[in-house]
Amino acid sequence: MTEPVFLAACARRSAAHTPVWIMRQAGRYLPEYRALREQHDFRTMMRTPELAAEVTLQPIRRFPLDAAILFADIMTPLDGLGLGLRFTPGPVVDRPLTTRAAIEALAWPPAEEHVGYVLETIRGLRGELPAQVPLIGFAGAPFTLYCYLVEGKGSKGFVRAKAFLHAEPAAAALLLGKLAELTIDYLAAQARAGAQALMIFDSWAGLLGPDDYRRFALPAVRRILEALAATGLPRIYFPNQGATLLEEVARLPLEVVGIDWRLPLSRARAVLGPGVAVQGNLDPAALFAPDAALEAAIERVLEEAGPGPGHVFNLGHGIEAATDPAKVARLVDHVHRRTARGGTP
Amino acid sequence: MTEPVFLAACARRSAAHTPVWIMRQAGRYLPEYRALREQHDFRTMMRTPELAAEVTLQPIRRFPLDAAILFADIMTPLDGLGLGLRFTPGPVVDRPLTTRAAIEALAWPPAEEHVGYVLETIRGLRGELPAQVPLIGFAGAPFTLYCYLVEGKGSKGFVRAKAFLHAEPAAAALLLGKLAELTIDYLAAQARAGAQALMIFDSWAGLLGPDDYRRFALPAVRRILEALAATGLPRIYFPNQGATLLEEVARLPLEVVGIDWRLPLSRARAVLGPGVAVQGNLDPAALFAPDAALEAAIERVLEEAGPGPGHVFNLGHGIEAATDPAKVARLVDHVHRRTARGGTP
Repeated sequence: MTEPVFLAACARRSAAHTPVWIMRQAGRYLPEYRALREQHDFRTMMRTPELAAEVTLQPIRRFPLDAAILFADIMTPLDGLGLGLRFTPGPVVDRPLTTRAAIEALAWPPAEEHVGYVLETIRGLRGELPAQVPLIGFAGAPFTLYCYLVEGKGSKGFVRAKAFLHAEPAAAALLLGKLAELTIDYLAAQARAGAQALMIFDSWAGLLGPDDYRRFALPAVRRILEALAATGLPRIYFPNQGATLLEEVARLPLEVVGIDWRLPLSRARAVLGPGVAVQGNLDPAALFAPDAALEAAIERVLEEAGPGPGHVFNLGHGIEAATDPAKVARLVDHVHRRTARGGTP
Repeated sequence: MTEPVFLAACARRSAAHTPVWIMRQAGRYLPEYRALREQHDFRTMMRTPELAAEVTLQPIRRFPLDAAILFADIMTPLDGLGLGLRFTPGPVVDRPLTTRAAIEALAWPPAEEHVGYVLETIRGLRGELPAQVPLIGFAGAPFTLYCYLVEGKGSKGFVRAKAFLHAEPAAAALLLGKLAELTIDYLAAQARAGAQALMIFDSWAGLLGPDDYRRFALPAVRRILEALAATGLPRIYFPNQGATLLEEVARLPLEVVGIDWRLPLSRARAVLGPGVAVQGNLDPAALFAPDAALEAAIERVLEEAGPGPGHVFNLGHGIEAATDPAKVARLVDHVHRRTARGGTP
């Protein structure tokens, strides 16, 4: 059996074409997703393996994507821990962790028990997905989870969460360390259930400058990546808006770094070095352009990525709900055609 | 008369100490500001010269700041143009510009007539401010104004505004060009009224990658900066979250570049070169730290800025409403003491 192109690219091996998948590919831009969401709330969909698997598969049926990603939320492993977590669908935490005592009290059962539905979703998906379409498991990075847990909800600048870092650095470090442990349990369980790559979304890494990132966010990410080495799976880390953090990221033990649209991939590669694959980074706004302009924008990303192996094509951020699915078809087709290296598998 | 330290730093001349002012220094973290706001809505305060001048002066009375900044909003010059602009206090545009016809119809009277209240505020302030405290006039950059005008309100990603760039590039360019003209009129009038430096806030520049920034946002900024050369005033441009755009910014005709907290000033200086002063860039969250940690964070900014002239100390973003004013006093005092070069004026 030929190695799936996605896994080849993660390992910086050449493949028949550059693989492509899309952040939030299982989501609201798809009418079939919206139809399901009319019948079920977000939390029910996330916690019901049949529904979560169905949603994961929807984009795979529509487009020749090169990877699937588990349908879940970055806050999923914090559900059911007494924090008053709700999905609106953005996460809201009714009892935010704003005291040392509350942070000390945070506890969680083993993943098999606590998020059994996620693991069941993964096991079910492995039987449904084509062999050429690996399944990506994922989790939120500790700092990103921390932001929601301390702020209590999504926010432009997460002022309370950032203020807490500075006002109570020891309590903040305790919480970030606990979130690293929880995430290790969670991702290792996903690996055992059958995930074929593990991605860590640090959606709010870009709220920190390099000094504070090194001090507060990085140690927890490093701990997770080191612990996951034992799984043997590709480790993908996405430090969103992290252009100024990349020198730090370059020293982490990982296989792939996701890059948002702000940083051209050639510059990311120059900082990360040849030992790391890159994933990204078309601006999701380009999907609103006429086809010729969209294709020109795709070309620029491919050019910045360079001709060598080790590029997973993706957007530089999650796809927007208002996107026309026909544009996604165009995108996937264009990347495949332009990067085809003959000798198809 | 000694040259004010703020103007010396803008011109990269050495001065008695590093000047410091604070983005949004006239704002909600001050109890005296909140007291006035209880009596008047934001728009009334902005449009009433006595109130706008009073608010501008509040932080100057409290702290030995080295510059004052006009109290106004980046959307001020768009008020009264039939767009249904409201301040909540964030700007909301009830009739967003989403068609070419609406963009073509956008027109404005001469600044003296249209924003006479701003010019009167500036004239009044010049008589009230100490000679050592220059007054900064300001405007929003065309792309940032464009974001609100097309999106209709503040937004995390300004998806509609960005989609419009790609879907209707010619109409978007027309709007950006008109906003450049409007901004030239507005800032030239501020200069004639007595502003002593001119700052352009590009709050949403960081929504664009370098290619799109060069294509859509940069030409309008360049036009304004070129036109303002005739004023002879220092031109300050703040491309918020613009770490990956700085190579482009380095080629603009200007005296000072504002840097947000994500990019260490040493790296900004390396890209911008010795011919430009930098302004910034303490993370506003550091003002929530205990004094010793706050002072350590200030030291890091001073160290990154380097010993040479051409640094205006500031935050890397507007001060947060929850900030304790005593921390601002500490900040100003610490910067002054640590950078004092003897021979006080």
